Amino acid sequence: MELYFAPGACSFVPHVGLEIVRQKTGEGFEPKLIKLHKGEHQTPEYLAINPEGQVPVLVVDGKPLTQILAIADYLDHRFPKAGLLPTDPWERAQAISTLAWFNNTLHPTFTHVFMPHKFSDDKDVQQKIRSHAVGSYRGLLEKLQGRIAAGGPIWSRTEASLHDAYAFTLLRWAGFAGIDPASLPGLKAYVESRMSMEPMAAAMARERVALDTYKPAA
Amino acid sequence: MELYFAPGACSFVPHVGLEIVRQKTGEGFEPKLIKLHKGEHQTPEYLAINPEGQVPVLVVDGKPLTQILAIADYLDHRFPKAGLLPTDPWERAQAISTLAWFNNTLHPTFTHVFMPHKFSDDKDVQQKIRSHAVGSYRGLLEKLQGRIAAGGPIWSRTEASLHDAYAFTLLRWAGFAGIDPASLPGLKAYVESRMSMEPMAAAMARERVALDTYKPAA
Repeated sequence: MELYFAPGACSFVPHVGLEIVRQKTGEGFEPKLIKLHKGEHQTPEYLAINPEGQVPVLVVDGKPLTQILAIADYLDHRFPKAGLLPTDPWERAQAISTLAWFNNTLHPTFTHVFMPHKFSDDKDVQQKIRSHAVGSYRGLLEKLQGRIAAGGPIWSRTEASLHDAYAFTLLRWAGFAGIDPASLPGLKAYVESRMSMEPMAAAMARERVALDTYKPAA
Repeated sequence: MELYFAPGACSFVPHVGLEIVRQKTGEGFEPKLIKLHKGEHQTPEYLAINPEGQVPVLVVDGKPLTQILAIADYLDHRFPKAGLLPTDPWERAQAISTLAWFNNTLHPTFTHVFMPHKFSDDKDVQQKIRSHAVGSYRGLLEKLQGRIAAGGPIWSRTEASLHDAYAFTLLRWAGFAGIDPASLPGLKAYVESRMSMEPMAAAMARERVALDTYKPAA
């Protein structure tokens, strides 16, 4: 198995997933670093793997699989001992529901902050989209903080999870949106408590990423 | 089981899924119509079921489950005879990958056409976001048309599928974006060929929706 990933991108989620698989089953993977700032996701070679030019891609026996939720489902079925998703159908569906919410709501909202040019060619419109999205993104992180505070099986696991990896990624992105992670103390404390767990620490070290990307205005 | 849905919304996907379950297993469900234009998704009663105020919600034994991908996974595990997703882990993951692409890319792009006020409070900015998104949405529907033309297991099933229900929904929305479905002839022909299949026809009849919502400019 090969994982195509970019440091700090949402590919961190399957990256941690594969580290969990390695820890629990001994099955390794080959990390393939894609440098987005050098346009490596737009080369003919990469577009042959994923025509969408996105990370992550999991390649198994030479065949590509895209989308975080699909990679999670595949790894969970192939490596049940890794415990990536709950075995009970209802608990499993609730876990997927949260991953889907991250994937179709929080991530796309952040895209308006990070890549507003996707939504308009007009620089002034882009700036307005970005500033509006910062408020929306903060509201969503507060909702996530509330869900974690409310507890339940997803947020009370004794070992690092796909959800922890996603929460780390989303909170790390907050800094790029000008949101100080310290202003979300419950979420920050939760994420920090998971960062020393081996699969998270291993993926963070390989990607050379830290949680706090916030730079206060000068 | 109860399904909270709104006519023509993405809840059409689990609606068809439940009709497939009914056809294949005899297990029925109670359809619960939510009138978005009357604000029924914002009442205290509905927000108690789904604090996000969205459809779909599947309620099982009084407990809510949100998110299309989670509902699909749950129904597939509980009713394997319905064949909602492939049994082979790789084929299953590829099927989920396509559903995730619909869910995190095509649907959010259409949201910019249908609800541009989510992205700016400025009417002029909203109009610019909307017109840009129409072009993006058309491009994505062309990609979908290309995927269907390329064939493969997802698009060559002999019976109606969750993917068919999603393709119907996304092409139906094209009309609201001012895109004539006839301008996407391959996609239109595919969707039309699935509409007479019982689960699709039953859900369409209950929701009182037709494929073509396009109104040519006067």
